[in-house]
Amino acid sequence: MKYTQSFIKTLKEVPADADSINASYLERAGFIEKQMAGVYALLPLGFKVYKKIESIIREEMNAIGGQELLMNILQPKELWDETGRWAEGKDVMYQFKDARDQQIGLGWTHEEQIVDIVRKKIQSYKDLPQALYQIHSKFRNEPRAKSGLLRGREFMMKDLYSFHADEADFNRFYEEVKQAYLKIFKRLGLEVRVVAASGGLIAKYSHEFQVFTEVGEDTIFYCEKCDFAQNKEIAEVKEGDKCPNCDGEIKMAHGIELGNIFSLKSKYSEPMKATYADKNGAKKVIIMGCYGIGITRTMGALVEVSHDDFGLIWPESVAPYRAVLIDLTGKADSIYEKLVQAGIEMLYDDRAVPAGVKFSDADLLGIPYRLVVSEKTGDQIEIKKRTEKESHLDNIDNIIKNLGQ
Amino acid sequence: MKYTQSFIKTLKEVPADADSINASYLERAGFIEKQMAGVYALLPLGFKVYKKIESIIREEMNAIGGQELLMNILQPKELWDETGRWAEGKDVMYQFKDARDQQIGLGWTHEEQIVDIVRKKIQSYKDLPQALYQIHSKFRNEPRAKSGLLRGREFMMKDLYSFHADEADFNRFYEEVKQAYLKIFKRLGLEVRVVAASGGLIAKYSHEFQVFTEVGEDTIFYCEKCDFAQNKEIAEVKEGDKCPNCDGEIKMAHGIELGNIFSLKSKYSEPMKATYADKNGAKKVIIMGCYGIGITRTMGALVEVSHDDFGLIWPESVAPYRAVLIDLTGKADSIYEKLVQAGIEMLYDDRAVPAGVKFSDADLLGIPYRLVVSEKTGDQIEIKKRTEKESHLDNIDNIIKNLGQ
Repeated sequence: MKYTQSFIKTLKEVPADADSINASYLERAGFIEKQMAGVYALLPLGFKVYKKIESIIREEMNAIGGQELLMNILQPKELWDETGRWAEGKDVMYQFKDARDQQIGLGWTHEEQIVDIVRKKIQSYKDLPQALYQIHSKFRNEPRAKSGLLRGREFMMKDLYSFHADEADFNRFYEEVKQAYLKIFKRLGLEVRVVAASGGLIAKYSHEFQVFTEVGEDTIFYCEKCDFAQNKEIAEVKEGDKCPNCDGEIKMAHGIELGNIFSLKSKYSEPMKATYADKNGAKKVIIMGCYGIGITRTMGALVEVSHDDFGLIWPESVAPYRAVLIDLTGKADSIYEKLVQAGIEMLYDDRAVPAGVKFSDADLLGIPYRLVVSEKTGDQIEIKKRTEKESHLDNIDNIIKNLGQ
Repeated sequence: MKYTQSFIKTLKEVPADADSINASYLERAGFIEKQMAGVYALLPLGFKVYKKIESIIREEMNAIGGQELLMNILQPKELWDETGRWAEGKDVMYQFKDARDQQIGLGWTHEEQIVDIVRKKIQSYKDLPQALYQIHSKFRNEPRAKSGLLRGREFMMKDLYSFHADEADFNRFYEEVKQAYLKIFKRLGLEVRVVAASGGLIAKYSHEFQVFTEVGEDTIFYCEKCDFAQNKEIAEVKEGDKCPNCDGEIKMAHGIELGNIFSLKSKYSEPMKATYADKNGAKKVIIMGCYGIGITRTMGALVEVSHDDFGLIWPESVAPYRAVLIDLTGKADSIYEKLVQAGIEMLYDDRAVPAGVKFSDADLLGIPYRLVVSEKTGDQIEIKKRTEKESHLDNIDNIIKNLGQ
């Protein structure tokens, strides 16, 4: 993409109403645009990052047998009354009347609808297990939306629901999802910890995938030596305690919850009568789990944990472009063409602006590699990683080999 | 995908509340599930078709320089007041109050928001032209949702917006989009006609991309000999008239509007003050167009024009699977593996159900090719196109060559 043809517009100043590190960097660098508190548009640059995170999640969901579908956002009250969550969730759910005076809510989670679908389709133990997921907009009627993409009123989420004949099969799959989640966050370059927590309005207990950072809203007590970690809301330990699992000491940290997995068991299938016939023809309640990842929140968290004074630092797996080519000669078109033909996702800064502007924008955008063509570089190209200070000269063929990996 | 592991559940009977051919076939075949009037979930099979339509549209939008972004569904009243469309569109737009007592609407189109973004980002003629599009859920507060996916209250849409320095550049791009749309519908196997029409709440005039079918809601007057076609709402001709362009006769047809393109010119940019500085530094109003395609509606229209008494008939470009393999021997696993390894998207009907059920489900699902392995076929495989009556025997290598195209 040539910069002059792109929709990339960076700002020199941090927007006045940016409420967090992620919002200020992402708005300044032109990845997102605030529409109202907690509601952001993903501009083309931000959309590219979003899509890459989405792809990684989709790949790992498909790898464990997830089948993708797309449920609707508009939810009828009657369905949510079956579980009592229309009333229970009224502070979270946007609820209003439509043109026919019927009560409608906007989906903030989809247990009711997926159970409604499954109870019509699943009849026998032969139809189980099933793992169904979607990637779609979710809504929360947050009076105090804040922290940019971390706590939004409209956000993108992946939600997976699984259905099993018995608890043993559910436990097997729950562990598979846990491993898939760890793979996803590793691919995203995020260090996460699995934290025991309450399940809020969804279930009694859950496991959260938390990335530790000072701006995290959640307080976590964890052991540095083993994998013990509890969210404060259910914690049986406090800072300085001895770990119940080993002889390590309990520490405190703040975390951003990027994903969560819930043991639903029969919480929804029982009141909604989602049953199957077992081998002997006996009617049994379906055992369920559900598993979420906040995709736009993950994008915000990536910024919180990976930036410096000059701007964003995207991990290579989700960067909007692999490299930015800065042309100070007006003659780099053929180099750009070569890189594009080699299949490297390039941003070509062909603007007629001072070199300093190009360099500072390259840093601000956080693209992993910076290539410079100038009078000084001659037939060669200067290459520098966003995370390193030192650059070196190399020829185009080596650079293609290097970046093509 | 093995049928026994899939979430495919067909119904023997047409659902009682199906209100159209597309809803009855799609629900019976397990592609969609009705949640309430005009609101459907896309089940895994339907989602696959949806994704393929989406991909074709995305490819053609990128080919004409479209940059993808993702705007939000929640819309603040203030923004829509700038053009007067909060009040004007109140019968179409879901409007309600949030937890902070602010008025919110659900996006049914996005001119206001995209102009709001663009007026903050575009300053100079050098920043133009721009073409920005998104693919996302849209909402219409329809009191009489009907016709399955054809007139929904929640649906998927691609909406593209273009921004130009002058009308000449806008006209050039408008024609490019028209050609891109014709390519898209051709790839989808749909014969469409470009019809002059009014622009409704969006603009004064538009061009619609109509597929002719008896169930279409729109009345179109067209000439069979040339490309003259007008929607009844603006028509200057009637059935039996002589075509104003040639000596052909005007006919009448009913159409389903799958896409539309609008000359917005300065309708939104002027009241919202979206301007740029021209070469001389003079402030000029940005010239705009917008261009929609109803993706789920297109899926419904495909069913309306392509089915028979036995079920759906998907064009190869969007079929959920390329071929269904029906095993009547219990020994076809290795054939299935070979086909999958050759990169052919297969549905493998490995169910322990009577042959007749497998055959009728294969027809109902509308998958382009049916492969049968039985005692009779020996070392060979019987292959039949969904659209043809005759089958023939062939060996696996030829079949792979054939289907791999």
